[in-house]
Amino acid sequence: MNEIDINADLGESFGAYEWGADETLLQFVSSANIACGFHAGDPHAMRRTAESCVKRGVAIGAHPGLPDRLGFGRREMAVTPEEAADFVLYQTGALQAFVHAAGGKLRHVKLHGALYHMASKDERLAVAIVKVVHQLDPKLLLYGPPAGRLLESAAAVGLRYVVEGFADRLYLSDGTLAPRQLPGAVLDQTESVVRQALSLAREGAIRTLCVHGDTARAAEHAERIAEALREAGITVRPPR
Amino acid sequence: MNEIDINADLGESFGAYEWGADETLLQFVSSANIACGFHAGDPHAMRRTAESCVKRGVAIGAHPGLPDRLGFGRREMAVTPEEAADFVLYQTGALQAFVHAAGGKLRHVKLHGALYHMASKDERLAVAIVKVVHQLDPKLLLYGPPAGRLLESAAAVGLRYVVEGFADRLYLSDGTLAPRQLPGAVLDQTESVVRQALSLAREGAIRTLCVHGDTARAAEHAERIAEALREAGITVRPPR
Amino acid sequence: MNEIDINADLGESFGAYEWGADETLLQFVSSANIACGFHAGDPHAMRRTAESCVKRGVAIGAHPGLPDRLGFGRREMAVTPEEAADFVLYQTGALQAFVHAAGGKLRHVKLHGALYHMASKDERLAVAIVKVVHQLDPKLLLYGPPAGRLLESAAAVGLRYVVEGFADRLYLSDGTLAPRQLPGAVLDQTESVVRQALSLAREGAIRTLCVHGDTARAAEHAERIAEALREAGITVRPPR
Amino acid sequence: MNEIDINADLGESFGAYEWGADETLLQFVSSANIACGFHAGDPHAMRRTAESCVKRGVAIGAHPGLPDRLGFGRREMAVTPEEAADFVLYQTGALQAFVHAAGGKLRHVKLHGALYHMASKDERLAVAIVKVVHQLDPKLLLYGPPAGRLLESAAAVGLRYVVEGFADRLYLSDGTLAPRQLPGAVLDQTESVVRQALSLAREGAIRTLCVHGDTARAAEHAERIAEALREAGITVRPPR
Repeated sequence: MNEIDINADLGESFGAYEWGADETLLQFVSSANIACGFHAGDPHAMRRTAESCVKRGVAIGAHPGLPDRLGFGRREMAVTPEEAADFVLYQTGALQAFVHAAGGKLRHVKLHGALYHMASKDERLAVAIVKVVHQLDPKLLLYGPPAGRLLESAAAVGLRYVVEGFADRLYLSDGTLAPRQLPGAVLDQTESVVRQALSLAREGAIRTLCVHGDTARAAEHAERIAEALREAGITVRPPR
Repeated sequence: MNEIDINADLGESFGAYEWGADETLLQFVSSANIACGFHAGDPHAMRRTAESCVKRGVAIGAHPGLPDRLGFGRREMAVTPEEAADFVLYQTGALQAFVHAAGGKLRHVKLHGALYHMASKDERLAVAIVKVVHQLDPKLLLYGPPAGRLLESAAAVGLRYVVEGFADRLYLSDGTLAPRQLPGAVLDQTESVVRQALSLAREGAIRTLCVHGDTARAAEHAERIAEALREAGITVRPPR
Repeated sequence: MNEIDINADLGESFGAYEWGADETLLQFVSSANIACGFHAGDPHAMRRTAESCVKRGVAIGAHPGLPDRLGFGRREMAVTPEEAADFVLYQTGALQAFVHAAGGKLRHVKLHGALYHMASKDERLAVAIVKVVHQLDPKLLLYGPPAGRLLESAAAVGLRYVVEGFADRLYLSDGTLAPRQLPGAVLDQTESVVRQALSLAREGAIRTLCVHGDTARAAEHAERIAEALREAGITVRPPR
Repeated sequence: MNEIDINADLGESFGAYEWGADETLLQFVSSANIACGFHAGDPHAMRRTAESCVKRGVAIGAHPGLPDRLGFGRREMAVTPEEAADFVLYQTGALQAFVHAAGGKLRHVKLHGALYHMASKDERLAVAIVKVVHQLDPKLLLYGPPAGRLLESAAAVGLRYVVEGFADRLYLSDGTLAPRQLPGAVLDQTESVVRQALSLAREGAIRTLCVHGDTARAAEHAERIAEALREAGITVRPPR
């Protein structure tokens, strides 16, 4: 397939605190994961971001996280599968209302931060989460890592799964991400990021590329990746 | 019409904090206003309460409040119309997901506490809130006081409005509620509460009776009111 | 020593949510661990509880927890030592102001829930926490389990440590608590609880007995334990 | 007196959200109002900011606000005098612990945002707040507007009061601030700001000048004001 999705985490501002280069990123991504008010975001950011996505034709997903705003949802918490599922359902439902009000349609769900990692490793968490997403709307897509419990659980329940890759993170030879603490684990040269994006897009296993929105170079990376993909004849568009 | 609705505020527990006699009240009410996590409630209480309502055939409404859990949504806050509308949309959407997951359908919205009072008095708040409720689902009912900006704004936008009365609050001769600070403003004798419920039901202007769930006698009141209405040949059921 | 302390977790109400039988328990305990607003409690409960303790001559301690009100501080969270220390310092300082305003003096610190357990197991957490407690006031006592990192770290920094035992929890032969999931791990017969309290008090290793305030029988247990100790000639009083 | 204080609101970052140009501002101000975790700030920002102030010899004050992080403490809330006092005591106590741990001493209290305005207008709020500040430490200074209930209540209880002026806000001929909505109410030309700072410093009624830390030009304004004052022979230092 000569196409790939580019996604970014958006709508992470909170109250008076602004975050990310959302309007710039929206020019280059084909799908947006909108924060839902637990780890980041708030009802006002959700409305604004949903409206911007609808206006620009960017596909919208929910980006639910752990109830830990102080930790930006990046710290693991010992939540039960039922608790995790309730968190995901609450946040996804809330976002769905804003997407609906903006005249759009919720297309996907991508877990945030620690919840993304916990659910990839823990089968009971993954199963409980996948179930409520399917319950809410069986046509929703779930974005997640190339292997692990989320992928398996989504398959088991019949939820369509979109494998995500990172243009700016080093992959080890076994296909897993190099831990952030390793030197070189985060690519910061635009050239390296673009090269990796192209290579992932060509391999075909990855169907959506995540570009980060919170680093200084995020928007630049997204722009250069979108450009390079276009030049390589690869269409940037949401997963079908 | 020989019928009336009885509604109660339910699902107001939060984490380890239990609140109200929900399971008992659910035997006597025909509709439930479920807290949505801002002033009270949490995703787990929302799931449990939505499931109980569906199981018992009690009509479900969202009960959104101000983002002030410490004040239980009872303190006025200087929020803008846009902010208020976003709060209502967020909370109602979140609840809708749980109702949907429980196999039910969201029927109504009733504002909570200070937000209820603020929107009854302030036209700009009322208009903004009524609009997002209508946007979310034009078939939703809005529960509110017999007069004021909410009623007028609902009418203007074509949202169906259900006039609410209180069985345990004294009404002044002009039809408004006696302020809580007045001696006798809150009826605590079961007989008086039941008598007023019957009288309001017979008058016909009121289409839903609110019974409170947080006082010691709440469940007893609800039971006695339901009984007295049945004996008087008045059907207790959700608004059509 | 013919004396022992009885402590209870108090001030865990939050906003409109009432919790525990504080006023009753205050008749029987010699020291109180007051919640500080992260996992439970709020500024108003802190004021009221500090004032009650001062009036009754009950020794006051801070009871800081993880920033997880929804989970009542009972879920582990992956916080760094620096974060944990900041949480403890913030909450202890806040409580100290209320104790001071009530005319009392802060005597001890006891970690709550998951933080208590995490710091008992993790040396880096324990060291960081013990340091800030010592920094705030080197005369503060730290209440904690009979073994583990908290005890060792307190000793290292010169903070006085008070070994805590549970009258209503089963101890294994190695002196550790039986996990809650084990049948019989929580003693619910008043006789067993009182017997264990007496036995712990006589052994002498335990210098403070924790009685729980959130179960139906909590106040009864506390009363019977206090009675039995008195009859056995053991004085109930705060640690010296 | 040929001296004046320059104060700025600092430590308003929250979790991953950075706010303000704290390190730059700290070069030019003589006193800092540190956010205490209700409207902004968190335990980690409080520690960092207290340490920076102590290192640079900047006088430290608490900057307590309403419990409304989403609204940055800028929205009025209908809190009772007792509630407001408890909020102030809680936050000031928490900050005091960090100041103490950093080897410094809390010098003043300045209310934030809506609480500052509410307490200036409402005598019962002002009296309750002034009392707890005095209770915590009778040597604390209270920063506030040139007239109103805060000033009067502080005088009544014997709390020392430091009159604050704004270098970047237009004053009306009666000495009150022009409302923000008025065109020209906020001075944005550095020259105008510096001129007004000099004029306020010379008049002598104002003993501390507030410079804002959240606008793009804040640090530049602060630097230029400090420079101009020095050139005019006016010493910038904390109130005695």
